Amino acid sequence: INSKLPDVGVTIFTVMSRLAAETQAINLGQGFPDFNADPELLAQVDAAMRAGHNQYAPMPGVPALRQAISAKTEALYGASYDPETEITVTSGATQALMTAILAVAGPGDEVVVLEPVYDSYVPAIKLAGARPVGVSLLPPTPGEPTYRPDWTAVRQAITLRTRALLINFPHNPTGAILEDADLDELERIVADTGVLLISDEVYEHIVFDGRQHASIARRPALAARSLLISSFGKTFHTTGWKIGYCCAPAVLSAEFRKIHQFMVFAVSTPMQHGLAAFLGDPRHYLDLPAFYQAKRDRLAQGLRQTRFRTLPCPGTYFLLADYSAISDAPESEFARWLTTEHGVAVIPIAAFHGDPDAPGSNRQLVRFCFAKQDSTLDAALEKLQAV
Amino acid sequence: INSKLPDVGVTIFTVMSRLAAETQAINLGQGFPDFNADPELLAQVDAAMRAGHNQYAPMPGVPALRQAISAKTEALYGASYDPETEITVTSGATQALMTAILAVAGPGDEVVVLEPVYDSYVPAIKLAGARPVGVSLLPPTPGEPTYRPDWTAVRQAITLRTRALLINFPHNPTGAILEDADLDELERIVADTGVLLISDEVYEHIVFDGRQHASIARRPALAARSLLISSFGKTFHTTGWKIGYCCAPAVLSAEFRKIHQFMVFAVSTPMQHGLAAFLGDPRHYLDLPAFYQAKRDRLAQGLRQTRFRTLPCPGTYFLLADYSAISDAPESEFARWLTTEHGVAVIPIAAFHGDPDAPGSNRQLVRFCFAKQDSTLDAALEKLQAV
Ligand SMILES: CSCCC(=O)C(=O)O
Ligand SMILES: CSCCC(=O)C(=O)O
Repeated sequence: INSKLPDVGVTIFTVMSRLAAETQAINLGQGFPDFNADPELLAQVDAAMRAGHNQYAPMPGVPALRQAISAKTEALYGASYDPETEITVTSGATQALMTAILAVAGPGDEVVVLEPVYDSYVPAIKLAGARPVGVSLLPPTPGEPTYRPDWTAVRQAITLRTRALLINFPHNPTGAILEDADLDELERIVADTGVLLISDEVYEHIVFDGRQHASIARRPALAARSLLISSFGKTFHTTGWKIGYCCAPAVLSAEFRKIHQFMVFAVSTPMQHGLAAFLGDPRHYLDLPAFYQAKRDRLAQGLRQTRFRTLPCPGTYFLLADYSAISDAPESEFARWLTTEHGVAVIPIAAFHGDPDAPGSNRQLVRFCFAKQDSTLDAALEKLQAV
Repeated sequence: INSKLPDVGVTIFTVMSRLAAETQAINLGQGFPDFNADPELLAQVDAAMRAGHNQYAPMPGVPALRQAISAKTEALYGASYDPETEITVTSGATQALMTAILAVAGPGDEVVVLEPVYDSYVPAIKLAGARPVGVSLLPPTPGEPTYRPDWTAVRQAITLRTRALLINFPHNPTGAILEDADLDELERIVADTGVLLISDEVYEHIVFDGRQHASIARRPALAARSLLISSFGKTFHTTGWKIGYCCAPAVLSAEFRKIHQFMVFAVSTPMQHGLAAFLGDPRHYLDLPAFYQAKRDRLAQGLRQTRFRTLPCPGTYFLLADYSAISDAPESEFARWLTTEHGVAVIPIAAFHGDPDAPGSNRQLVRFCFAKQDSTLDAALEKLQAV
């Protein structure tokens, strides 16, 4: 058969997690916690199963969960999405992204993505028959040490063929976040070009140093033209449950649901009930920044005793570090070496570039995941000091 | 935006379940049990959650579950699928079907389906950009009172553009099953045309009267060119968990996984662990035919006291009944009337036809789901006696 995705290999996350397992390295690569979810949440799911919530959920999701998502989005961002027609529960953000892309883009269309780019976006765009157009984030400089969106370049990349601009802030893998001024820029771009937005905000609750997450839902003019995608995996330490959602105006949600309905029909009923109950207490997500900020700071402080140089991390549970004082090797080679020789697995940023071997892709940066127990971080730091 | 699926409305299952809820009718429409799953299975999932199995599963599935699927398929059908490269766990059979279709078919291709056809097949084929080609099952006659595959018509429908033949036995909604001789026919068709098979066997464990399920996995020549799809929803009374799988030769599985990886990445980790443990005892699926045969017989016997005339039901948990002695109305009108006026929701078979208003689509048949508590079946029968 003709491959629909001839370029796709095993993802970098699987590659590095496998290598970590084989070499018994500490896995700071693939983004997932090494601690368990809240027992209260697990008990809610168990209660839902015992109460018999094991048959098909309604296609767009369990009503109580859609209501809880609506209430949270309203409370945090002031946007009111109608649970009945504007919120759809999905099998993780990945399925929501695939569905959103298939809903809006087809052959002859272009979708603009920001590089470094999360690994599922480009294949999903290609599967829709559309063409991905990459726009690089502005790389860190001594004066501006975090990656920043390059709105001028984004504007230039948008043509009459552009169906959607796909963004992801807080940004994986760079940790970049949007500021209020970025939402202003986005509003102008959307007003001038009429482009649709697909906004992957799975790290919405992991923003540090007292900052507020700049969701596109804060701006009615953006929300009116956006598919807003999030998930509970990162927020509730349940990356393996695969429960996400998409909020979008009814006309977009209707097209989204037509595809969702035949892609999965509905998603896990007991998990949806458990999450709906757990969302009742906002502390379950409001406490998250402090929890992860302590881990970020622990890792960053520890890395000061090494030859790695960290970049600022305003959001996500990923910290970038420059290894140029240690090695000249390209990123993927360095990441393998660090895993096999020093027992700490990380992710090369080059893997998030369309062409990992292009000169601009190799900045001698690797990504550390700090969603780990303090003891795991300390053990990794001890190994990294020997590098 | 241009709709990718302009013809798609709300599915008949949602329509009838909603109408049943609104009118407080007994819901024998949408196919799901009204009793709970085995407490042992729920306890296994709970144990998996408490043991911390809440993070990403490996992309193709939890190894123990893939091994259990391989062992079951080998024991029952003699096929040996390699868990490492040939089995992929999916978000239900629906996602497996969508993924299989996207993997094998694209613009310019045709996929042959058998009518009446399950509602997700045609939209999935259209989303892939391919063309669905419907071939009618031979309708029931007095001499042959169940639907039967029409292999001559299938053979005629296969052209150079045909990428795949999509079959579903035990067949929803008609209950038709394959015999050994049908596998012979399929072998000849596959050998002569080189077509691929996608075989949806979600009712594999619900075959009655001592018959054995004629899985395509029984024939190496078929298995070598097939994507075999099944699910645990129907087998373990967990339609809301959405855990299914696809078994296919490594070369087909590789293409399947490329799409799976970016459609959902992986599926629920705790459910996979729970199911792997539960599959350890084969009685959990071997006892199913007797369990459902008693319900089929209870419903069929009860319907003898009514003006419905039942058709034989060799497999699935659906029973077809002819209502021509009651009404001349077309099926969908009759189904609504039965729900609102007599308090029993059913599914019109016409909804499984490309054109529900075509003359051949309306045979005055409706589908009753008997995956219900005996008390539910009895309550429905009491109402049906008044019709
Ligand atoms: C789906 S595995 C990847 C997890 C993740 O989001 C990351 O590590 O970036
Ligand atoms: C996904 S809802 C439909 C359930 C089902 O298989 C049926 O009723 O035919």
